[in-house]
Amino acid sequence: MTPATPRRRGRPSRTESADTPAARDRILAAAREEFSERGYDKTSVRGIAKAAGVDSALVHHYFGTKEQVFEAAITLSFAPAMEAPRTVEEGPLDGVGERLTRFIFGVWENPATRKPLLAIVRSAVNNEAAAAVFRRIIVTQVLRRIADRLDVPDAELRAELAAAQLVGIAMLRYVIKVEPLASADPEQIIKRVAPVVQAHLTGPGL
Amino acid sequence: MTPATPRRRGRPSRTESADTPAARDRILAAAREEFSERGYDKTSVRGIAKAAGVDSALVHHYFGTKEQVFEAAITLSFAPAMEAPRTVEEGPLDGVGERLTRFIFGVWENPATRKPLLAIVRSAVNNEAAAAVFRRIIVTQVLRRIADRLDVPDAELRAELAAAQLVGIAMLRYVIKVEPLASADPEQIIKRVAPVVQAHLTGPGL
Repeated sequence: MTPATPRRRGRPSRTESADTPAARDRILAAAREEFSERGYDKTSVRGIAKAAGVDSALVHHYFGTKEQVFEAAITLSFAPAMEAPRTVEEGPLDGVGERLTRFIFGVWENPATRKPLLAIVRSAVNNEAAAAVFRRIIVTQVLRRIADRLDVPDAELRAELAAAQLVGIAMLRYVIKVEPLASADPEQIIKRVAPVVQAHLTGPGL
Repeated sequence: MTPATPRRRGRPSRTESADTPAARDRILAAAREEFSERGYDKTSVRGIAKAAGVDSALVHHYFGTKEQVFEAAITLSFAPAMEAPRTVEEGPLDGVGERLTRFIFGVWENPATRKPLLAIVRSAVNNEAAAAVFRRIIVTQVLRRIADRLDVPDAELRAELAAAQLVGIAMLRYVIKVEPLASADPEQIIKRVAPVVQAHLTGPGL
């Protein structure tokens, strides 16, 4: 499917490129690109090293295993979504449904932040190791922080049910692209979804 | 990832196996298995033919292109979920949220019906042609039929927002497996999700 991406041929000389913060950044950028273009399964540490113009050993030195490079890469791709808990924290609880829904839509509607998110979803759906990394990040960086703000016993389940509504809309609107949802005005969807997110987070317990 | 599945060597003789309804069924079974094990991208008509012990020409004869074989295979895998509109049709509209939620949970909780659904999701997330086939089936066989029962102008969007809640839970519970959602008692989730599905389908318009 995905055509092989052209690789850089001329490696920069060791002295100016290896074992420096710049090399680390270059490896991370190459890793994001490789994981995004090829998916988790088809990406190798060797391929990342080659694309970054460094030895595989340097990739291992900075990041460890392929799984750990993936974690660093998706942490970066996922960074915009990781701001979600802040929208929950900064304001009254009774407006949390709309703030959170609006924020998540902003991340998905922007092609620059949508593309890396889609790449993470693809990898996580296809590979158990990638799913485990994604799960750890989404739970510790996003869901648990939202749950903490709620301060009720079933807060984590509430946060996950709210997230499920938003994840499902992302799947149907941006991945499967069912109409009319895929072309609907974001404001129209936010109006219908915000009360659901609010109800999951702060509605009466059952 | 997926290890190569063992292929049958000895082809049945033409006279007893080719161009009969039994051959058609065998091709379809092989196609489901191949798409499910390898995903859409890595499956070929030739591989399906080989697994079924027939010529590729016979696969084309019965089903057409790879995309059309995929459509036939996922129609079969998706058959249990296609009963969902019936649960909407058979009963009063004010209990539709619970009936539909309970039905979809039944399909996902049963490993025999969950496995083929997961395979469809994986293929659709990774390949645009597979996504297009999935989209057509889910819209025409499920969402539109549910929308018809609602008989309001924004019925299709309502059906899709309700589906989004259920799809998102499937993603987080069965694919990404976030806790506590992944291990929660289905009844506990149904209690919280049924009112959301009900509100999307029959709540006040906005």
